[in-house]
Amino acid sequence: MILAFDADDTLWHNEDGFQASHRQFEVLLSDWAEPETIDDELFAIESRNLRRYGYGVKAYTLSMIECAIAVSGGRVDAEAISTILDLGHSLLDRPIELIDGVEEVLDELGHHRLMIITKGDLYHQLLRIENSGVQSRFWQTEVVAHKDQATYQRILTLHGVAVEEFVMVGNSVPSDVAPVLALGGRAIHIPYHVTWAHEQHDGDHDAPTLSSVRELPLLLADWGLH
Amino acid sequence: MILAFDADDTLWHNEDGFQASHRQFEVLLSDWAEPETIDDELFAIESRNLRRYGYGVKAYTLSMIECAIAVSGGRVDAEAISTILDLGHSLLDRPIELIDGVEEVLDELGHHRLMIITKGDLYHQLLRIENSGVQSRFWQTEVVAHKDQATYQRILTLHGVAVEEFVMVGNSVPSDVAPVLALGGRAIHIPYHVTWAHEQHDGDHDAPTLSSVRELPLLLADWGLH
Repeated sequence: MILAFDADDTLWHNEDGFQASHRQFEVLLSDWAEPETIDDELFAIESRNLRRYGYGVKAYTLSMIECAIAVSGGRVDAEAISTILDLGHSLLDRPIELIDGVEEVLDELGHHRLMIITKGDLYHQLLRIENSGVQSRFWQTEVVAHKDQATYQRILTLHGVAVEEFVMVGNSVPSDVAPVLALGGRAIHIPYHVTWAHEQHDGDHDAPTLSSVRELPLLLADWGLH
Repeated sequence: MILAFDADDTLWHNEDGFQASHRQFEVLLSDWAEPETIDDELFAIESRNLRRYGYGVKAYTLSMIECAIAVSGGRVDAEAISTILDLGHSLLDRPIELIDGVEEVLDELGHHRLMIITKGDLYHQLLRIENSGVQSRFWQTEVVAHKDQATYQRILTLHGVAVEEFVMVGNSVPSDVAPVLALGGRAIHIPYHVTWAHEQHDGDHDAPTLSSVRELPLLLADWGLH
């Protein structure tokens, strides 16, 4: 079996940092607009920029700057823009904080071939993996642009992994669960306590949902994957 | 033989667009500083941000914004910041323009296994490869964070390529030539007419230098690689 983990919000905390910086962004622009207006505008700008920028902190920072100019009607000053750059730097420089239980579970499952499959900014993700303290537990790490069926298929082919042998663990239904199930692989959903608006989803899925990564070894044992 | 090409400034034009946008950036800030001051400040900011941001247009745009705030002493207005965001969007949205001779040479060398190995922003590079019109000529494409010896070794291992069978073609000595020669592979240097300041290099190398990609088939034939 190949057991692959998503990284952000599966191995380590991520979205909570974005949400905290989002609150600071709302406060920074509070002279110009209400939080809901700012949120709506930022969501619209991020959506528009997604194909151009992709995911990650640099994309988020550029969209925040564009949003600040928009909601202030072009009157925001350089000091506020500078604060937004600092919000981005803080997110990039944030130390890795592993999610509770991850280290123990990686130890327990260390006899399996473990992978990281994460999407986002290549540099930032590689830096985070390097600084995570758990890089050596993983057989392979893949930073990808999109987590769709075609990408998972490409990774399986590249590493010579049969889809029946592949189990994906992650917090995102559209990125970690749905495309893997569609390919015929197995997925395990471990929700994070907050979800990025662009990863929100509707509808059910057939993958088991765990409330903590600590439950993972037992589920794998139930599946006969010791 | 596996013949790998760098992408930016080897397959298609890139740095000329950055240089043009750099000139527009200097004009935009001409009320605040001389071009040389702006260049020095931008170079220093880009260098400082390189490990945090990596390479690519988003990184460049964020560094330009930081530079505009610095050289104006915090007095630059939102309109100028908005123009900088537009400079970044123009670079990201720029249509691919293949370098003269590339298409014909890829046709001529189509019986070899061809790769792209490029560094930079994952999303932007994948978009450019998709939009290049030549993606189908390549056996594999790799977007990497750093073009160092370890990265080349990882790619060769991943794709089961022996280093003696590997030839790298590119415009950058530190990224495309030096690490491949150090590994024991072969490299071919095809300079581009402008070089990014951060890719400038001192010293000689032992790789052949061509003045156009059109000379590549003849050189490979000289090496017995028909």
